[in-house]
Amino acid sequence: MSSATRILVIYTGGTFGMLKNEKGVLVPQSNIEKEIKKKAQLYDHEYWSRHLEGTDLEEYLPIPVGKDTEQKILYKILEYDELKDSSDFTIDDWLKIARDLKRHYHGYDGFVVLHGTDTMAYGASLLSFMMESIGKTVVLTGAQVPVFQPRSDGTNNLLCALLVAATQHIPEVTVFFGAHLFRGTRVKKISNTRIYAFESPNFPPLLEAKTTLDVDPRMLIHRPGSVPDECRLHDQLSTRVYVLKVAPTITPKIIRAVFDGMEGVVLETYGNGNIPIKRKEIYKEIEKAVKSKVLVVNVTQCVKGTVSGKPLYETGLLLLECGVVPAYDMTAEAALAKLSYVLTKTHLSYEEKVELMKTNIRGELENPNHTSK
Amino acid sequence: MSSATRILVIYTGGTFGMLKNEKGVLVPQSNIEKEIKKKAQLYDHEYWSRHLEGTDLEEYLPIPVGKDTEQKILYKILEYDELKDSSDFTIDDWLKIARDLKRHYHGYDGFVVLHGTDTMAYGASLLSFMMESIGKTVVLTGAQVPVFQPRSDGTNNLLCALLVAATQHIPEVTVFFGAHLFRGTRVKKISNTRIYAFESPNFPPLLEAKTTLDVDPRMLIHRPGSVPDECRLHDQLSTRVYVLKVAPTITPKIIRAVFDGMEGVVLETYGNGNIPIKRKEIYKEIEKAVKSKVLVVNVTQCVKGTVSGKPLYETGLLLLECGVVPAYDMTAEAALAKLSYVLTKTHLSYEEKVELMKTNIRGELENPNHTSK
Amino acid sequence: MSSATRILVIYTGGTFGMLKNEKGVLVPQSNIEKEIKKKAQLYDHEYWSRHLEGTDLEEYLPIPVGKDTEQKILYKILEYDELKDSSDFTIDDWLKIARDLKRHYHGYDGFVVLHGTDTMAYGASLLSFMMESIGKTVVLTGAQVPVFQPRSDGTNNLLCALLVAATQHIPEVTVFFGAHLFRGTRVKKISNTRIYAFESPNFPPLLEAKTTLDVDPRMLIHRPGSVPDECRLHDQLSTRVYVLKVAPTITPKIIRAVFDGMEGVVLETYGNGNIPIKRKEIYKEIEKAVKSKVLVVNVTQCVKGTVSGKPLYETGLLLLECGVVPAYDMTAEAALAKLSYVLTKTHLSYEEKVELMKTNIRGELENPNHTSK
Amino acid sequence: MSSATRILVIYTGGTFGMLKNEKGVLVPQSNIEKEIKKKAQLYDHEYWSRHLEGTDLEEYLPIPVGKDTEQKILYKILEYDELKDSSDFTIDDWLKIARDLKRHYHGYDGFVVLHGTDTMAYGASLLSFMMESIGKTVVLTGAQVPVFQPRSDGTNNLLCALLVAATQHIPEVTVFFGAHLFRGTRVKKISNTRIYAFESPNFPPLLEAKTTLDVDPRMLIHRPGSVPDECRLHDQLSTRVYVLKVAPTITPKIIRAVFDGMEGVVLETYGNGNIPIKRKEIYKEIEKAVKSKVLVVNVTQCVKGTVSGKPLYETGLLLLECGVVPAYDMTAEAALAKLSYVLTKTHLSYEEKVELMKTNIRGELENPNHTSK
Repeated sequence: MSSATRILVIYTGGTFGMLKNEKGVLVPQSNIEKEIKKKAQLYDHEYWSRHLEGTDLEEYLPIPVGKDTEQKILYKILEYDELKDSSDFTIDDWLKIARDLKRHYHGYDGFVVLHGTDTMAYGASLLSFMMESIGKTVVLTGAQVPVFQPRSDGTNNLLCALLVAATQHIPEVTVFFGAHLFRGTRVKKISNTRIYAFESPNFPPLLEAKTTLDVDPRMLIHRPGSVPDECRLHDQLSTRVYVLKVAPTITPKIIRAVFDGMEGVVLETYGNGNIPIKRKEIYKEIEKAVKSKVLVVNVTQCVKGTVSGKPLYETGLLLLECGVVPAYDMTAEAALAKLSYVLTKTHLSYEEKVELMKTNIRGELENPNHTSK
Repeated sequence: MSSATRILVIYTGGTFGMLKNEKGVLVPQSNIEKEIKKKAQLYDHEYWSRHLEGTDLEEYLPIPVGKDTEQKILYKILEYDELKDSSDFTIDDWLKIARDLKRHYHGYDGFVVLHGTDTMAYGASLLSFMMESIGKTVVLTGAQVPVFQPRSDGTNNLLCALLVAATQHIPEVTVFFGAHLFRGTRVKKISNTRIYAFESPNFPPLLEAKTTLDVDPRMLIHRPGSVPDECRLHDQLSTRVYVLKVAPTITPKIIRAVFDGMEGVVLETYGNGNIPIKRKEIYKEIEKAVKSKVLVVNVTQCVKGTVSGKPLYETGLLLLECGVVPAYDMTAEAALAKLSYVLTKTHLSYEEKVELMKTNIRGELENPNHTSK
Repeated sequence: MSSATRILVIYTGGTFGMLKNEKGVLVPQSNIEKEIKKKAQLYDHEYWSRHLEGTDLEEYLPIPVGKDTEQKILYKILEYDELKDSSDFTIDDWLKIARDLKRHYHGYDGFVVLHGTDTMAYGASLLSFMMESIGKTVVLTGAQVPVFQPRSDGTNNLLCALLVAATQHIPEVTVFFGAHLFRGTRVKKISNTRIYAFESPNFPPLLEAKTTLDVDPRMLIHRPGSVPDECRLHDQLSTRVYVLKVAPTITPKIIRAVFDGMEGVVLETYGNGNIPIKRKEIYKEIEKAVKSKVLVVNVTQCVKGTVSGKPLYETGLLLLECGVVPAYDMTAEAALAKLSYVLTKTHLSYEEKVELMKTNIRGELENPNHTSK
Repeated sequence: MSSATRILVIYTGGTFGMLKNEKGVLVPQSNIEKEIKKKAQLYDHEYWSRHLEGTDLEEYLPIPVGKDTEQKILYKILEYDELKDSSDFTIDDWLKIARDLKRHYHGYDGFVVLHGTDTMAYGASLLSFMMESIGKTVVLTGAQVPVFQPRSDGTNNLLCALLVAATQHIPEVTVFFGAHLFRGTRVKKISNTRIYAFESPNFPPLLEAKTTLDVDPRMLIHRPGSVPDECRLHDQLSTRVYVLKVAPTITPKIIRAVFDGMEGVVLETYGNGNIPIKRKEIYKEIEKAVKSKVLVVNVTQCVKGTVSGKPLYETGLLLLECGVVPAYDMTAEAALAKLSYVLTKTHLSYEEKVELMKTNIRGELENPNHTSK
């Protein structure tokens, strides 16, 4: 059994394991292992009885043999005491997951995190940034339809996440959903009704689950073998960050109110990074915040696209001139997560934090000014 | 000449007509007619010389003959004195456009509005709601690349918008961009770099410009001939509306700050309409606002999807119970525009305004509870 | 139990039920029921023991309770003696399926056919044409990955097919695959590696399996309730039909050879229905065939598109003039199937058969000349 | 002027330059330069008058200045005497184009070929194979709507093709259409009505025309600077090649008839490369052809996908065993073109030709067995 691949599945809650309560709404259920064991795709009971029962591996669940791999894959489920709908997640929840990944790093060959879909894009980004170095594959996944339902997508999502974690060496934090594996810092929940709920609008998927499961090597950050087998974790995050979306009825008062007390703000602007500028009171308010050392990042409201370091429009130029940092092609979720991470790098000056925000550190952005060097 | 179709083009500014200024950023240019006349696709000078010069139609530009129509199409450009980047648009700008459409309604067979792309989704929605009845086709369009550039998409966008306005009877406010005509209340800018910059994620396009230009009749609100030839305009809009996006670092203070002084707020929630609920102080703050008669609408952050009137999750149920209005499959832009419109219906009670928000009035939403009646 | 919905599943073979043989290639397995019963999503053993065992329904398999329906759904599997890879299907195989559907029509509420993917587009078209009237839903489905594999798509495809057949009233022959239900006469296998293997390039899907399962009523041929509950079958098909793809190296000899002995030929032409015409010997050969009463149908090689009855190009005009029938937006598969059906309508004259080919009879084409009447 | 970039445009015919004739169908027009000069996007008359008139460059047309490049781009149009609808193209037409590219290779910095869309996929593949080495960018383009029409896509296609040829160093034969640049050996006409008429189903585009024009360097065959500046041409092609599509009504007679006299045949099979095998007479016929040294290549009918060298199904195994060559993920068009090329390599043995067919030589296929070495 020593040659089997071992995966740790951290079950944090989410639609995957929900059932309706007395009010008729879905809430997370504990002891998910029991339900998972009912799925022939996820659990080979005969193998367990014959090979694992009574051994020191009897807490593991074996995946049935299949064409995707000749390795034997075993997984263990670490279920959290307090299971949560991910819309209830706070920064502390992701710190806990990160610490658990580190704690168990050397005991397993790969990791799967069962996570609610609502904040999965935030979570995947936060975990990506906190993991300053990781040598094994981490896959977040979940479901649009609970695994208690016959038509659940959770069975296939979990199975593919396990297979990816066990058979592919992708030393990054990733998300598997629908039929694709995405980079964690690039992912976005794009639908609340479709089974293919996630996309990474500015970056191709790392893998598509077809009749075969093969990663696209052109899309990986690290060459195979180039990353040390270690888990280096920066386990601090700032909570004094928020996001402000620009809309035509914006006022200086709104800006003031949202920026108050913040260390960092993601400004979700129009198009190429634009705000109203004829109303000088608007950018004056932002300028004031930047001068007081709030780290302000300019992200576009468009699902696809980039905010350049060389603005095309007068309405974008002023933001750059007053010190707002272009997010390039980061998602709003990745930008907020990165702010939360960078702002706790207390040894860095404000200017160094600004520079770090503009630099690609986890495959989260492409800054054409840097790559052209 | 009396049989020619006449279109009014209102030029309000936007990338379509921009040139770089001395700072190297794009700003709108006046006298756009001069540039438009250089495009063989948009102006048939020979026809003008032969048929229009010296007549009372000499201010019109003729589109060259083509296979899309046998009618002669003439258009006149109404250029605004103050041309604007649409990120500088405020509610007053759309009121002005709406009033101009009404003023000129009986002088033309159709209308095109050249509009910046940054707030076009807001503008198309606002105009849709203000136009309580309109019997002619209104098409908003613009460009990702200025018409002064050889590779501009503006020439084709304007041409298709003119052809649609002249040859199709679609008595709605619509947007033509790339190769598609979208319903105004459904449209969203989804890319700031692609030529196909707009989509209507929850509703099919009304028309695709292929080798032919044919509307999909299944997608129209009104049957041909069923709408009176009139322009009934509600020309008031509230500016005391804004949008608040939920993120994991949300605090009651942020909610309080954004809601303060508002008549209506679009709450951009997670997934199916969820917010954190374990932190009771969050929804308590929202509940307080609703009790004080702020009209709060629940829109999903997902580009595709719907917030149901029958919440699936505990995290969404509480919002409904405290009086927050589900937006169904409205975009955030349409929801903000609709709030701005509905809140000026001063003869309606708060409850009637709530009901109106949930009712499909301009093709902006599908409420399954209503349609199943 | 009388209120349960009963579905018949006809298992004909295909990848769905394949295992590797001693040569290492996949071949169909018998007794598929045994494997299906292992899937918790497809078989509720507890329900069966409690309610069906020992009754006259004990041959039925119950689907587990789920949110998609409150009805109890039971299905019975009719397994063919000779299971086939669908690439081995001949006209006789589809005649057999059609006759079995008719034979069992009044015993069930809906029908699912497990069919190999290779010729599923042909099969769905042939069954559509043969069923001159059918009052219940027929769904063909299959798999890209066998149900013996953990990562099989067969489980979900079969489950969705059963749910559609049981809960939706779509009196047509349809195909469920991946996440969509397609009209049988519109479907095409577009990928041999992706899980979403089918599309209907010229017609929208009838339904998408999202978190809910709802048909798009705009896309159905028949209004609910407008079709009699009967199965009227035309159970003859011609085998003297084939398809000839035009390529630059075509010669009269090739045409002559393929047309020889045929009653009907699908000519897969370039673009809008074009063939080389400067080489007069090419169309002379086709003209000769048409004069000898071979029914020749002009289908485009493009996956999307149409061959019009009013050709745009000189290279297409000649075909029309010599009596070749435009296929409009039929797929090659639908056109071949329709030929096979129409050619056995022995009471029709050649001209009437030509007219029938151009007429939309099962939602297989849109002929703008007809609809504009 | 010596620093200007010079492009040769070879105009061969096609929809791009068509007008309706007296029968109402489109036929190619000569003197296309006259029409091109009317487009402000394609011709800067003022620049020509000021800088080129009366010089030895006066036959060149200058592209107007734009943001895509600071270079001055001049192009000259080589119009063929006999302009053709590309459905009339034979092997000789592509030999002529290839020879003209070679003849003019050192006089220009890049090449554009205006080509009909009907056989553009064949043409792009044939030219790719014939060009055994080429150090400059070659772009084929055309139009779905003639340039004489206001709503023509030809203006933008030609402009983008010129800009790509002048500003990007992509030493391959490529196709620009709609908004994408595709590899010549990967392209397929997928629609006869949409403006985006082409795709490369098994390979990502090399470039998307967005607000900027940037090649995706991950997708190129050659690293910049790694290809000598030369044009090495193999100017022979076999015409004794054809394509046979498998359909359920196939007979040995049809196979015999199409194979007769051929040196090579593309067999368009079902799914993963399957044919009926229970009917032994079918593959016996193919086996006989292979034994008599016809080079038979197995291409899937699916638009996306691959025929593996390790068949999954019994129905595919027999073809491999009897010597039929798997095409991997080549399109049918590329496979036919490659056969036409390989079969004239008279110094190669049959076995060496087979090996060459399976080897990636112009980016036309991915053979996982080779790349895994």
